Amino acid sequence: MSTPAPTFLSGIQPSGRPHLGNYFGAIRQHVDSLEEPGEHLFFIADYHALTTVKDADTLRNNVRDLAATYFALGMDPERAMFFRQSDVPEVTEIAWLLATVTGMGLLERAHSYKDKVANGIKPSVGLFTYPILMAADILAYDSTIVPVGKDQVQHVEMTQDMATHFNSRHGEVFTRPEARLPERSDMAKVPGLDGQKMSKSYGNDLWVFEEGKALKKAIGRIPTDSREPSEPKDPSEIQLFDFLALLLEDQELQEWKDRVEAGGEGAPGYGHLKVRLAEAFDDHFGPARARYKELMADPAELDRVLLRGAEKARERAVAVRDRALQACGLR
Amino acid sequence: MSTPAPTFLSGIQPSGRPHLGNYFGAIRQHVDSLEEPGEHLFFIADYHALTTVKDADTLRNNVRDLAATYFALGMDPERAMFFRQSDVPEVTEIAWLLATVTGMGLLERAHSYKDKVANGIKPSVGLFTYPILMAADILAYDSTIVPVGKDQVQHVEMTQDMATHFNSRHGEVFTRPEARLPERSDMAKVPGLDGQKMSKSYGNDLWVFEEGKALKKAIGRIPTDSREPSEPKDPSEIQLFDFLALLLEDQELQEWKDRVEAGGEGAPGYGHLKVRLAEAFDDHFGPARARYKELMADPAELDRVLLRGAEKARERAVAVRDRALQACGLR
Repeated sequence: MSTPAPTFLSGIQPSGRPHLGNYFGAIRQHVDSLEEPGEHLFFIADYHALTTVKDADTLRNNVRDLAATYFALGMDPERAMFFRQSDVPEVTEIAWLLATVTGMGLLERAHSYKDKVANGIKPSVGLFTYPILMAADILAYDSTIVPVGKDQVQHVEMTQDMATHFNSRHGEVFTRPEARLPERSDMAKVPGLDGQKMSKSYGNDLWVFEEGKALKKAIGRIPTDSREPSEPKDPSEIQLFDFLALLLEDQELQEWKDRVEAGGEGAPGYGHLKVRLAEAFDDHFGPARARYKELMADPAELDRVLLRGAEKARERAVAVRDRALQACGLR
Repeated sequence: MSTPAPTFLSGIQPSGRPHLGNYFGAIRQHVDSLEEPGEHLFFIADYHALTTVKDADTLRNNVRDLAATYFALGMDPERAMFFRQSDVPEVTEIAWLLATVTGMGLLERAHSYKDKVANGIKPSVGLFTYPILMAADILAYDSTIVPVGKDQVQHVEMTQDMATHFNSRHGEVFTRPEARLPERSDMAKVPGLDGQKMSKSYGNDLWVFEEGKALKKAIGRIPTDSREPSEPKDPSEIQLFDFLALLLEDQELQEWKDRVEAGGEGAPGYGHLKVRLAEAFDDHFGPARARYKELMADPAELDRVLLRGAEKARERAVAVRDRALQACGLR
């Protein structure tokens, strides 16, 4: 039997405007991954977001914003099924079926739940059963490969367990997925504007579509010191180069580093580097920013594109759901 | 504002062939309740049954058997929405939304869960989150009145809590239901064939459509003693009268009791009473038994009737689901 083409599935949290860390840490890989043969599914995890986002307008805006950002940055809705999780409600049906074969112990061992409880968060049932909905998301499309970060590997393992339990009780229904960790070389290092890891919750993030004065102001926050431009410096100790490394061609980057290292008259100061960083940022994200604005100006069309993605994904989910219901005796 | 007509909702467990206790304890009331003005919904809880029934064919048969039994015994699918729970999958969507507003503590306090754990049952997540699916079942149809036994009142109270939590976070979406306990006079006393409470798990139950030799044999099991027919006896101590009381007209019942109490020549023996009980059972259930057999002979038609019921119920559930999704920002 020949191996069928793989089915890749990735979930994306609609947790606000994507920043530079999201772009280099995930969005770019998602867009690039379309090159790999197989089927590609991406869903915006709006059901999951309900466990944290309480405001309806915020959630609605976050979902549209995220979709427009992805499409603007090269996500091709003709080559991938890109959709809202809640547009495939079959996942909640499958989640119930999985709940009936999943022991409480499995969920109680979930790191993400234990961490939240340890941090004093008063847990909702949704937070506790989250891994079951996640498993349903994966299994609903017969996904074979789930690209995840290290902290998400346990969720894929739990999904494997649930698929195995269900299949051993009701017959071969679900396809066992495999996790795929990013290769080390793919992981871009994106510091925050204050030197810590970039994160919305630290307030040190740079929105990928920032522009004009706000962009200048944000870049202005990147920490420097009071040494003169002429003083020779080690570029590896200068945070600005972490940002420039993301956006400049290797050759140009090296030239700047060499000049800073050499020092002396004509060596660039931090101000010069910041101006160049703003330019490079604009060059990199400017065209996408323009597309993003167009997309955001027509939310109805954005919703239509998402729905078209969901229709294709839903066909798969309906087939898997029907198989599962049949196997349990509900059809 | 005038009070709208009430919406009644009852769930029925597809746990095997209904027995005399099920009939006098629930089915008859369900059929009679159609006389009360308002909308009437009855669902066969097949999603729930998955927490206990592992075999697909058993579950499929139980569901059809239960539906045929109800229709044969007078449930009118034109006057009530009578449907399979899983034919309205919107309840699993609503269950997820409720899970995000429900604290773990609420479920941990559920008697039915605590009892099962105390009895050494290794709990599945489905057993734990059962009250959430039950709440979704109730809220999905804007039910206003939920007729329940005493042991189920807590589930309606939990449903009220979940509706209140959701509404206070996301706006007035769900209708708060009220539990209705059966009036004492409605509660028929149905002993088992061995004198204990009638229950399938005790193996002392009498199937409502039992007939012929099997019926005779079952009635033969009802405990009697070795006193002669002529000896005067207290009818309240004779279990056979508990069964006869369910099936005979008051006047005839009284005549039998008088004769047993008087004793003497010509007083009926236990054998006579058993023959009369078998006859009365046949008179009472015979016509329904014939309809039941017809219905069971055409499972496709049975499925169609259930689906028609589900279509009407689903219209309501879709409206409630849409309202809920809109309120959370998922639409």
